[in-house]
Amino acid sequence: MPVDSLRHRVWRQLDVRAHPGEGISVANKLLIAAILLSVGSVVLATEPSIRARAPGLFLSVETFFGWIFIVEYILRVWSIGERREYAGLWGRVKYIFTPVAIVDLIAVAPFVILFLDLRLDGADFLVLRLLRLFRVLTLARGGPFTTAAREVWHSIAERRFELIFSTLMAFAMMIVSATLLYLAEKDVQPDAFGSIPRAMWWAIATLTTVGYGDVFPVTSVGKILGGLVALSGVGLVAMPAGIFAAALSAVHQEHRRHRLHDEATHGAADGERHPRGMD
Amino acid sequence: MPVDSLRHRVWRQLDVRAHPGEGISVANKLLIAAILLSVGSVVLATEPSIRARAPGLFLSVETFFGWIFIVEYILRVWSIGERREYAGLWGRVKYIFTPVAIVDLIAVAPFVILFLDLRLDGADFLVLRLLRLFRVLTLARGGPFTTAAREVWHSIAERRFELIFSTLMAFAMMIVSATLLYLAEKDVQPDAFGSIPRAMWWAIATLTTVGYGDVFPVTSVGKILGGLVALSGVGLVAMPAGIFAAALSAVHQEHRRHRLHDEATHGAADGERHPRGMD
Amino acid sequence: MPVDSLRHRVWRQLDVRAHPGEGISVANKLLIAAILLSVGSVVLATEPSIRARAPGLFLSVETFFGWIFIVEYILRVWSIGERREYAGLWGRVKYIFTPVAIVDLIAVAPFVILFLDLRLDGADFLVLRLLRLFRVLTLARGGPFTTAAREVWHSIAERRFELIFSTLMAFAMMIVSATLLYLAEKDVQPDAFGSIPRAMWWAIATLTTVGYGDVFPVTSVGKILGGLVALSGVGLVAMPAGIFAAALSAVHQEHRRHRLHDEATHGAADGERHPRGMD
Amino acid sequence: MPVDSLRHRVWRQLDVRAHPGEGISVANKLLIAAILLSVGSVVLATEPSIRARAPGLFLSVETFFGWIFIVEYILRVWSIGERREYAGLWGRVKYIFTPVAIVDLIAVAPFVILFLDLRLDGADFLVLRLLRLFRVLTLARGGPFTTAAREVWHSIAERRFELIFSTLMAFAMMIVSATLLYLAEKDVQPDAFGSIPRAMWWAIATLTTVGYGDVFPVTSVGKILGGLVALSGVGLVAMPAGIFAAALSAVHQEHRRHRLHDEATHGAADGERHPRGMD
Repeated sequence: MPVDSLRHRVWRQLDVRAHPGEGISVANKLLIAAILLSVGSVVLATEPSIRARAPGLFLSVETFFGWIFIVEYILRVWSIGERREYAGLWGRVKYIFTPVAIVDLIAVAPFVILFLDLRLDGADFLVLRLLRLFRVLTLARGGPFTTAAREVWHSIAERRFELIFSTLMAFAMMIVSATLLYLAEKDVQPDAFGSIPRAMWWAIATLTTVGYGDVFPVTSVGKILGGLVALSGVGLVAMPAGIFAAALSAVHQEHRRHRLHDEATHGAADGERHPRGMD
Repeated sequence: MPVDSLRHRVWRQLDVRAHPGEGISVANKLLIAAILLSVGSVVLATEPSIRARAPGLFLSVETFFGWIFIVEYILRVWSIGERREYAGLWGRVKYIFTPVAIVDLIAVAPFVILFLDLRLDGADFLVLRLLRLFRVLTLARGGPFTTAAREVWHSIAERRFELIFSTLMAFAMMIVSATLLYLAEKDVQPDAFGSIPRAMWWAIATLTTVGYGDVFPVTSVGKILGGLVALSGVGLVAMPAGIFAAALSAVHQEHRRHRLHDEATHGAADGERHPRGMD
Repeated sequence: MPVDSLRHRVWRQLDVRAHPGEGISVANKLLIAAILLSVGSVVLATEPSIRARAPGLFLSVETFFGWIFIVEYILRVWSIGERREYAGLWGRVKYIFTPVAIVDLIAVAPFVILFLDLRLDGADFLVLRLLRLFRVLTLARGGPFTTAAREVWHSIAERRFELIFSTLMAFAMMIVSATLLYLAEKDVQPDAFGSIPRAMWWAIATLTTVGYGDVFPVTSVGKILGGLVALSGVGLVAMPAGIFAAALSAVHQEHRRHRLHDEATHGAADGERHPRGMD
Repeated sequence: MPVDSLRHRVWRQLDVRAHPGEGISVANKLLIAAILLSVGSVVLATEPSIRARAPGLFLSVETFFGWIFIVEYILRVWSIGERREYAGLWGRVKYIFTPVAIVDLIAVAPFVILFLDLRLDGADFLVLRLLRLFRVLTLARGGPFTTAAREVWHSIAERRFELIFSTLMAFAMMIVSATLLYLAEKDVQPDAFGSIPRAMWWAIATLTTVGYGDVFPVTSVGKILGGLVALSGVGLVAMPAGIFAAALSAVHQEHRRHRLHDEATHGAADGERHPRGMD
């Protein structure tokens, strides 16, 4: 039976679009685990004191994951031919230039270069392997987090104007704050407040409440302005996050109401498996 | 036809009140873009290391935008005669003294002075050009952010007493905190806590959670009081922002319900364009 | 007519209970203004550089407000006899020992001592005049902030168990964090982490996100534990404020619904002045 | 009557499962107080300057609480035989290996070791007595905080996917931020940004807005990246707490509606004591 050909089975395992509403395939679950382990290994390997303890181990781990991702990439390009729009050689070329496949390629490339050179340290391009982290988002599609992600997306879409408006207000607040402190402190602390872009570093640290303490006003006028800026601006800069959280809550309640309504209306009757698949 | 006279067309392009419910005119969109670019140029030009790279460029950019805003101001005063209340010479004088036109004039003035002097550095008055940033708010009226701004305004209006009450509580907390730390630390750290206004700088940095770390209690009593102040006060000072975010969410839900109700009642029947114009 | 006797009129002006639902009396409005100005003067007078500029002015201002508050106190004790429970000499003694009157007396006492000594600096007891700030809360009763205060109070009452529970959780988090960092850093930084109470200073600064930066972990284990504590604890310590803000929003919505319902039912019919008087 | 045997009465006092819906027994209330006092004593005793003042007092207090908790443990194991599943010697062994009893044993062990050695300082294992703090959670079951705890739990359960999703996003943000700053600053500040795990310390301090100020970017690129990370990431890392607070509010409203509905339906009729027992 052609439907159960090897290529078809590989495709069903790798492509999240091959089985809508059936959750995440075993292969993709393993790939997500491999990506997370590989990312952890890349992160730890940048620390010399950790790498020094087991240089061979990190090299082996990298080689192992490198081969997995290279093979995955080749299998993906091969099996995507099952989808009509990517069939044939030309379809494969089309697929290779989709954004997802380009990210894949960029994240695989360092492994290939690595295998030719066999050094783990030095080159910054190795960090490109971390790009693979974003692949988790697409691989996990259809799983339980999809509903959460959809709610997040709906919240952003529904309140886009409030979000942009409050972000613009926060940005204006930042420019105004930086300008005020630039005027107040530029002669006393030219390094920290000698220009509006420099004062912006203070404004960001203050308005996000991070407050490293590397720069702060020292004159009376600067302290009074800085205090007023902190009191009035901190809430303003926190506003987009607050609006988003409230929107997410409202969207969640609405989705829940719709789902309960759907279930009450015909859920018990047809007994079908819900494609949403969760909560 | 007199309605389509040049002055009328200029007026329709410049005055947001000329075409309620029709969004932002092309001229105003271009002016918003010009203001944002000009503000970016003013901000960057204050940094000597950036200005040094291309002093001519910044001067050209400033000259360019300066002429645009001067011409805009003149056209605005000329074309406002289309509105009955500002018709005639006396009407123009009346218009020039409206708050919006005064801000316009103050923001244009530095360009005029600049053209007489042709230096970009030194004078603080150049920063006045940033005032133009606030013009964006009025120019964008009728656009998609108007609903967001209206919701923000309704939220503040509806919860004004809670907002003022919580702000007053936060202010009282600040005075009490500063007084306590002043009493605890004034002998040990006279520079930082030698008076209540000085201790206020610590109180603001602590209660907004900025925490620069330039001043902090060092005595045991001061640390205990400071810790209690931080634990009890941080939430209090964050309260106005929390109340506002909750109010904004409630107002948004209500507006949305009204809109859905309106649409259900007669939206489909008359098919009229909604003046609100957006979600 | 005995009802309009001088004592009765004074009482009606001073006692917020004399005229429920009629807002704040003129005398109390003036007293609130006097308290706020007096508090401002006390705060500014602690700063030597400000006091040095106009020592006579601050002394005059203090004398002026001192007499106002002393006369207010005497008039209050005298006129309270209009209320049956405080009538007669014995009733006055009873009144003097009510909490509000004790706060009044403590806040007035520094003025009396001041008048005997005529020095503005030195003694800490002068700060007691700031206690008067709390009087604003009782004087403003019946005014527009009363509804806001009532909503705040209802919110706390309705969610008291969630608030106490989350506060206890935050407190437990603080003890656990301090203990972990004490174990990790006590040998390296005995001054900052040599005991759990000392580590608590770090824990409070970290979990409230103030982060002065005077103390922080320096060992690898300490940094890992500190990072985990910050990530997991920051939200926990912010929880009581979040719960309170949500409760306040819900209470506000409910009050509003009740008010709208009341108005719809019999508001238009009787046309009576609402005792709530606002919103 | 065997039901009122001593063992049964001890069991009813100690086991929260012996009397569902009747609140907290007197013995457990006393034990909670003893635990809190004991925890306070353990915390204070780690501070040498406090312990030095009254070494005998701390030793007495520890001995006192030590005996209470040892006796409590023995009585608990003895009386648990009242429950069928833990009856007999084998039942007792089974009980001793339940998680709650193991925590009890670990928290009691330091006291036993202490009594053999009679020293309060030095050994880290003494901190294990703090584990008893977690016992408060189980002892307080059935009391007024149980509803609050249940609402907290329901909120987490209902929004588990949003919570995990936003936590994962925050975690990804942290890795990306640390990687960016590692690339920007690793050559200038190898100690602070020389590897991704090191840069993670900066990322955590920044994104939680703690901002100790021990590490911060110093290059222009690093400051621009750091500023962008702070602006975009601070809200993301605060998201899980915001989602949780909103969920808790929604769950509270729903529980309240259910309770009001229950009371309206048959509450007045049967007049029974509600097992929930609060609010």
